[in-house]
Amino acid sequence: MSTTLARLAQTIESRKPEHGGDPATSYVAKLFSKGDDAILKKIGEEATETVMAAKDARVSGDASGLLYEVADLWFHSMVLLAKFDLTPQQVLDELARREGLSGLAEKAARKDA
Amino acid sequence: MSTTLARLAQTIESRKPEHGGDPATSYVAKLFSKGDDAILKKIGEEATETVMAAKDARVSGDASGLLYEVADLWFHSMVLLAKFDLTPQQVLDELARREGLSGLAEKAARKDA
Amino acid sequence: MSTTLARLAQTIESRKPEHGGDPATSYVAKLFSKGDDAILKKIGEEATETVMAAKDARVSGDASGLLYEVADLWFHSMVLLAKFDLTPQQVLDELARREGLSGLAEKAARKDA
Amino acid sequence: MSTTLARLAQTIESRKPEHGGDPATSYVAKLFSKGDDAILKKIGEEATETVMAAKDARVSGDASGLLYEVADLWFHSMVLLAKFDLTPQQVLDELARREGLSGLAEKAARKDA
Repeated sequence: MSTTLARLAQTIESRKPEHGGDPATSYVAKLFSKGDDAILKKIGEEATETVMAAKDARVSGDASGLLYEVADLWFHSMVLLAKFDLTPQQVLDELARREGLSGLAEKAARKDA
Repeated sequence: MSTTLARLAQTIESRKPEHGGDPATSYVAKLFSKGDDAILKKIGEEATETVMAAKDARVSGDASGLLYEVADLWFHSMVLLAKFDLTPQQVLDELARREGLSGLAEKAARKDA
Repeated sequence: MSTTLARLAQTIESRKPEHGGDPATSYVAKLFSKGDDAILKKIGEEATETVMAAKDARVSGDASGLLYEVADLWFHSMVLLAKFDLTPQQVLDELARREGLSGLAEKAARKDA
Repeated sequence: MSTTLARLAQTIESRKPEHGGDPATSYVAKLFSKGDDAILKKIGEEATETVMAAKDARVSGDASGLLYEVADLWFHSMVLLAKFDLTPQQVLDELARREGLSGLAEKAARKDA
């Protein structure tokens, strides 16, 4: 997996209450302590902000705000994954599995041709 | 970067109309041909489905549906990035940058202690 | 209640399977037959489209698309309410209750002055 | 129009800066002063909370939380409408227009039968 995703997943994991995460000093630990709903609200918020940032990027011609919002969306997705004891590696595996299926479909299509 | 993300980004890039992507045979090429709004709607949809899947996972005790929806959300985020000529590597760089800042903040905090 | 909201709520109610709604000829009956998740996905979609339409309205100076999307959002909210045996009147009552509370708060504030 | 919606729209209108709305004492005046994006974020948030509340209602058997969230969603929709100088009456008119069209379609269908 990407070193960044692996390291970030490890940091997020270390912020869980059972690993000593402190809501008073860590944003992620605070999200964990608030529970599922607080994290799910962030998913909705960050998706909305991503949509807004994409619209703004078309007007300004500057996509840096969009990049920032997608990073926010992925970050909070990783907090959500951790809350359900899932890992970004499993997401990448699922994406690779689909690409493999799609590759197989293309191979089959070429045979048909 | 993760081999999976890099390969997937490459596949998505190859589905752009200017690279010969064919809306008749490729889902991603079809999204590109429909334009920004079609992709942004998918971001909103996949975020909503992620929230629903997390709620369902708490009832069923099975988080596989949530994993699937986060994969969908990341996949469509990558289509959006490509539409704006951004890459997942830039998202990872932004996440690494923040972690570095947060690491520096922690170092500074420890000095204070 | 608004005649329009009352009549629309009545029409939606009549599209429930137990009232003879036919998924083959009625969009609302089809949503009811698909279940909660289909309706909830529409809430997410219409909210996203509302956000997009507002952004577009600022660029074009024409807010008619936004009006259309808010109508869509309210319409699907009413289908959701009906699915849970709630009525728009109850939503209006809740809004009136809050306004009353806020009015009382203002009265209290004026007394303080 | 519903007396509640009309009165609420009037209250919201009075919170605009040009009508003397004070961000220090009024939540709506504060939203107006923050601008479009703050209101659009609320649309995304309230839609997400509506979806969550519906999921919770199925587990608890109590739909009062859902009613509360739909009221929040409609309330913030009305703030958005006001920001773009639109009214809930126009939304109701659009809903009535569609119902009329749908009624005409049904009449036409009956003629065809």
